[in-house]
Amino acid sequence: MLNKEVKRPHVVIIGAGFGGLNAVKVFKREPVSITLIDKTNHHLFQPLLYQVATSGLTPADIATPIRFVLRHQQNVNVLLGEVLQINASRKCVALFDQEITYDYLIVAAGATHTYFGNDHWASIAPGLKTIAEAVEIRRRILTAFETAEKCAGDHNREDITTLVVIGGGATGVEIAGAVAELTRISMASDFRKIDPRKTRILLIEAGPRLLPNMSEHSSKNALESLRKLGVEVLLNSPVTDLADHYLIAGGHRISTRTVIWSAGVVGSPLAKTLEAPLDNHGKVQVNEDLSIPAYPEIFVVGDLASFRQSSGDPVPGLAPAAIQEGRHAARNILRLINGKSTIPFRYFDKGTLATIGRSKAVADIGSLKLSNFFAWVIWLFTHIFFLIGFRNRFIVLIQWAWAYITYHTYSRLITYPWKPWVPGLPDRQVPDYPGCPCERITSLGKPLRR
Amino acid sequence: MLNKEVKRPHVVIIGAGFGGLNAVKVFKREPVSITLIDKTNHHLFQPLLYQVATSGLTPADIATPIRFVLRHQQNVNVLLGEVLQINASRKCVALFDQEITYDYLIVAAGATHTYFGNDHWASIAPGLKTIAEAVEIRRRILTAFETAEKCAGDHNREDITTLVVIGGGATGVEIAGAVAELTRISMASDFRKIDPRKTRILLIEAGPRLLPNMSEHSSKNALESLRKLGVEVLLNSPVTDLADHYLIAGGHRISTRTVIWSAGVVGSPLAKTLEAPLDNHGKVQVNEDLSIPAYPEIFVVGDLASFRQSSGDPVPGLAPAAIQEGRHAARNILRLINGKSTIPFRYFDKGTLATIGRSKAVADIGSLKLSNFFAWVIWLFTHIFFLIGFRNRFIVLIQWAWAYITYHTYSRLITYPWKPWVPGLPDRQVPDYPGCPCERITSLGKPLRR
Repeated sequence: MLNKEVKRPHVVIIGAGFGGLNAVKVFKREPVSITLIDKTNHHLFQPLLYQVATSGLTPADIATPIRFVLRHQQNVNVLLGEVLQINASRKCVALFDQEITYDYLIVAAGATHTYFGNDHWASIAPGLKTIAEAVEIRRRILTAFETAEKCAGDHNREDITTLVVIGGGATGVEIAGAVAELTRISMASDFRKIDPRKTRILLIEAGPRLLPNMSEHSSKNALESLRKLGVEVLLNSPVTDLADHYLIAGGHRISTRTVIWSAGVVGSPLAKTLEAPLDNHGKVQVNEDLSIPAYPEIFVVGDLASFRQSSGDPVPGLAPAAIQEGRHAARNILRLINGKSTIPFRYFDKGTLATIGRSKAVADIGSLKLSNFFAWVIWLFTHIFFLIGFRNRFIVLIQWAWAYITYHTYSRLITYPWKPWVPGLPDRQVPDYPGCPCERITSLGKPLRR
Repeated sequence: MLNKEVKRPHVVIIGAGFGGLNAVKVFKREPVSITLIDKTNHHLFQPLLYQVATSGLTPADIATPIRFVLRHQQNVNVLLGEVLQINASRKCVALFDQEITYDYLIVAAGATHTYFGNDHWASIAPGLKTIAEAVEIRRRILTAFETAEKCAGDHNREDITTLVVIGGGATGVEIAGAVAELTRISMASDFRKIDPRKTRILLIEAGPRLLPNMSEHSSKNALESLRKLGVEVLLNSPVTDLADHYLIAGGHRISTRTVIWSAGVVGSPLAKTLEAPLDNHGKVQVNEDLSIPAYPEIFVVGDLASFRQSSGDPVPGLAPAAIQEGRHAARNILRLINGKSTIPFRYFDKGTLATIGRSKAVADIGSLKLSNFFAWVIWLFTHIFFLIGFRNRFIVLIQWAWAYITYHTYSRLITYPWKPWVPGLPDRQVPDYPGCPCERITSLGKPLRR
């Protein structure tokens, strides 16, 4: 058979987050062949993931199948798989079960949690990066109230009705605000023996202020708004111990069984397999054009890239930065293909937003520092605008905007991981099940197993 | 402290399905104290669960927190827990960690799958009764296509692109139809190396016809509609063997890795702890008034009850039957409380419906046998009517009806059970991950583990 086509350059893109997906779109009408590899089958709108964790939205509201987004872009192959290793000298990436060679590579593998050396904290205090984590956090929050209601007849255990968020960045602030509204408003009339409005909610920050990446003005406003919602904020309180039913932060001992981790992120461990310099957050120190030293065909974008602006400030780990970097890397690859030299990346700062609840937010836009309602309106429209770009589901947007405004937390579901049904056991095996930590022994004696 | 209140009778209701929830509502303004116990925190609209399994709807669309449904009914306590044993002589039910005594008991614990003695088939062919199962089936169906796309370069493995539904009752017919539309229409343009429209879909039934509980006319119509959608239907083909990558049905060997079980249900194992006669499906043979012999204060309703109508036919395992029985049992309890005698239950048959896809359905309503579009319109309005009864979420209904009609399967997500992050391992541990069954060895040698 005659090969009529000239071989097209093969671009491999790792990660279908904001960086990777926007890079793919730049190639839409270009004579390249693209392989986009992601660990999941969906693009996740991470800025709203905290709402899944707090029952405001459901996973399908903020996640769209990658194939569906790119179904009309014929030059891209989408592959579900986890890249375990990049072999820069051989120009290939390795999955568990296969290797893929590339001519150009964009690494947009993002960031993951770090527990600062206390890896055993991970099972006690899950972080919030994936749908599975959001659903697990939702399960833990809701189960705490179910357990409290169940045990209320006996005594009120402080550890059950205390929810703790560790880390006062944007995610921590947003989760704490959403949890406060969930307990103070949405669930207010749902229980008979406990009053969810009296739930103790703590936000713990190691540093001197909330939202350290935003202005002092916004930090102060966020703190005030959270306190008005009844959230206790502990500043200057690094967590030094974390166990099943308590933690120690800034010398205080806090009884709790429900802890959410939003204290630290590091670059994906994939970065370690690149022969490139990493900063002290495990992020790849990229060249001015977003490529890495020694390998001009490899670009790193998004949360995994460490890029210092001419002002000396690092580019923040935000969706707009990832989008800009992804597009820039793709354009630089097109320049290389066409025999041109690459051009340096310039970050255009569109501002930083954080929401603290319905109708409250803070915004830093250039020298403009906004708080409360107007900032929230900006927040709302920005997010709707970005979501539409990916999904074009106007009816759903109306629906969730409406649900969001009316406090109808329609996704308040406790779901369990599937397990094959085992004859002779209850449908729900006991360890997953919210037992009463009061350890009340039934008069039947030992726990029952069929 | 003076006890001003006369002690109210305590009614315990096990299960918040159609039967249990409708029983609770009868007591709304009555001087009783109710404890409603369910294994999950949500009422599930089971008739649409197959749509979650096939990506058409998302769990929150068909599940509502029980507490939310009953938040204004002050005489009910909702308890998240699994009843493991009923002790009729001591008038109490036992959970894992506590015992609850009752004056009156309604058992609405429903039905579960049966593998007819082949319990080891459960992990190969999950059934469809809970959200966890629906999400798992969705994951398996979608992962099959991801794996097929990944392996297509090498060879096309028949077992990967063959989906099998076992059991030709309403659930089986509905799943097979929905899977056919998912592959033939929704996913048609999403892949590059495989053509999802060529997916082999089989529906296997042990008996001589589909929908054995409906009329011959409806069986014939369902069969024709499914064949038009490209589903291969095997009748008179009991499954005799089921393994990881094949099954044997009616003597045929079929290569497949994706099997869904809808072949048999039996009463919840809880029934065995009641001192009452069971039929050969493990369901409780109830008296005319829905109570059980020897215990006039215990009523059994819904899928767990075996009730023979005066015509000799059993009451079918359908939502309208459970609703009617739940209400009737509650009214009989009120009669007992007021010193009256109970009255016998009479089932009012509203007809039977099954859908085979968008704009196709069959309906038996009395002597009326409908098929295709008109039956489907009845199906649609019936389901919307029942959903509204529980949820009053009109905007959501419009949204999903619209999505349903336009083939926009917006919930096509592969999600994994949450696991604590383990340092030194990939985020996704390998056994859960869709490896390439082609067993292609990478040139890096053995599989990589960080």
